[in-house]
Amino acid sequence: MSGLALLDYASVLVFALTGALVASRAQLDLVGFAFIACLTAVGGGTVRDLLLDRHPVFWVGQPDYILIAVGAAVLVFFTAHLVESRYNWLVWLDSFALSVAVAAGTGAALSLNQSGVIVVLMGVSTGCLGGLMRDVVCNEVPLVLKQGELYVSCAFVGAFTAVVATRLGVEPLAALGLCALVCWALRAGSLLFGWQLPVYKARPPRR
Amino acid sequence: MSGLALLDYASVLVFALTGALVASRAQLDLVGFAFIACLTAVGGGTVRDLLLDRHPVFWVGQPDYILIAVGAAVLVFFTAHLVESRYNWLVWLDSFALSVAVAAGTGAALSLNQSGVIVVLMGVSTGCLGGLMRDVVCNEVPLVLKQGELYVSCAFVGAFTAVVATRLGVEPLAALGLCALVCWALRAGSLLFGWQLPVYKARPPRR
Amino acid sequence: MSGLALLDYASVLVFALTGALVASRAQLDLVGFAFIACLTAVGGGTVRDLLLDRHPVFWVGQPDYILIAVGAAVLVFFTAHLVESRYNWLVWLDSFALSVAVAAGTGAALSLNQSGVIVVLMGVSTGCLGGLMRDVVCNEVPLVLKQGELYVSCAFVGAFTAVVATRLGVEPLAALGLCALVCWALRAGSLLFGWQLPVYKARPPRR
Repeated sequence: MSGLALLDYASVLVFALTGALVASRAQLDLVGFAFIACLTAVGGGTVRDLLLDRHPVFWVGQPDYILIAVGAAVLVFFTAHLVESRYNWLVWLDSFALSVAVAAGTGAALSLNQSGVIVVLMGVSTGCLGGLMRDVVCNEVPLVLKQGELYVSCAFVGAFTAVVATRLGVEPLAALGLCALVCWALRAGSLLFGWQLPVYKARPPRR
Repeated sequence: MSGLALLDYASVLVFALTGALVASRAQLDLVGFAFIACLTAVGGGTVRDLLLDRHPVFWVGQPDYILIAVGAAVLVFFTAHLVESRYNWLVWLDSFALSVAVAAGTGAALSLNQSGVIVVLMGVSTGCLGGLMRDVVCNEVPLVLKQGELYVSCAFVGAFTAVVATRLGVEPLAALGLCALVCWALRAGSLLFGWQLPVYKARPPRR
Repeated sequence: MSGLALLDYASVLVFALTGALVASRAQLDLVGFAFIACLTAVGGGTVRDLLLDRHPVFWVGQPDYILIAVGAAVLVFFTAHLVESRYNWLVWLDSFALSVAVAAGTGAALSLNQSGVIVVLMGVSTGCLGGLMRDVVCNEVPLVLKQGELYVSCAFVGAFTAVVATRLGVEPLAALGLCALVCWALRAGSLLFGWQLPVYKARPPRR
């Protein structure tokens, strides 16, 4: 299913860019850029493939993915100083990467005929875990945990949409496109307009 | 072996509660609660299954686990403000989850006829790694590393007890019950009475 | 291929020593030492084996590895106070462990006839990920991210050397020895003489 591979390629490319941007914030050298870029780019999809026992893992069977991630790291190493706000680029690129990766993870699980719950969870994991690894390793506050922003929620709603759409007979690739679109729209709305869900706030005990 | 599944269910439920409590300390929204609850609940058992090449991974084959973890997250989201000391609840729930998860991990490895060393290690990993992931992701000091408390030691002694009991001919489920009991008693003793092992202290060099 | 097992044993031993040294900095007890030592010692190789679908994972099939790591932890627990600078020992032991583990990872991937890109990546992962887990769990600044030092670069050049040497017809074990030597020489040069690659520095935007 070549549409699925395309989603993986796109998510690897954009996540690698975000990894390299975080590496630039940590002032690493070129090899450090490539290392963090690869970790971010293939982290989520690798967990997905291990969990679903898909072998070879997507990038082990097709090393192009790694070359793309390394290329992205080189690009960022030499051009990141040209952009005004690296953090803004990071957050927006991450929103694209998240959306595409959620679609890629959802699609992979759908193609294996997994149950709805697992499909949604694979979408969320593929989307969120690469960025989470990047942030934990580089000691940034994980985007996943940023207060007052939607992040995991976007991944969840996107993946859920794809499952429902597929059940309703929508063609797989269209359902995945819809998934990415919904996920990204929610994330963008959260970044631009402050959309959020109520967060837990400790209140004084009732008695 | 349905007793083993029961242990997995119990450990998923209680670890999910601890994950949601940590999420409440990080002031996440409902989806964030569910994400951290799932990570904590299935983290240790997932590593165990991947290491032992057990497929499908326990929750991939049986999505009920995820629904239980999400249910626990919802429960905590709406009730955590009712409890006086969330940290106390966290630590004590974690002690139950640890004990049950060590038994679940030990049982899974025993049922695959692994060697004693591996059985003990699977017990320790299943028990400790979910909570460790929770704490690393949420940037809490890992309970595993808390000074002056027994934690990994409880898991180790519990799993070791199960291996010895099984060798002595004790019935598997009884051995696992004993394992959970020993692990929990040690952890509770450490929390209540300050039981601990001597810790490493740097002393001035001898020469 | 018994030379390969020897490399795994050596890397487990030395990485376990580094893990125990980090545990001493965190003032853990003996079981905590053993836990961190095992995590560090088998972390990188475990990821390698899972990615390449090699089962049983090296230490699951051969529990001696765990006993060696535990022995190293015990040794450090009782002797670390005798050394003047634990941090110096940590960094230098880590440099040996890195070099040997890169060779072990490279060799494992070569023996499975993986493509050049994957072989290099397996070398880098096996070498760097165990230490990275150690540092993330113990909340140390990952050596991987230390500014102004070569680390991932050494692993990369070492693994790359092995791939080229093998293509040129050098005997596998000799190629792996060369790999470890090149990796270690670069790391030692970086520690002793400050060898480094240019790091990314944000400059004021051009316009």
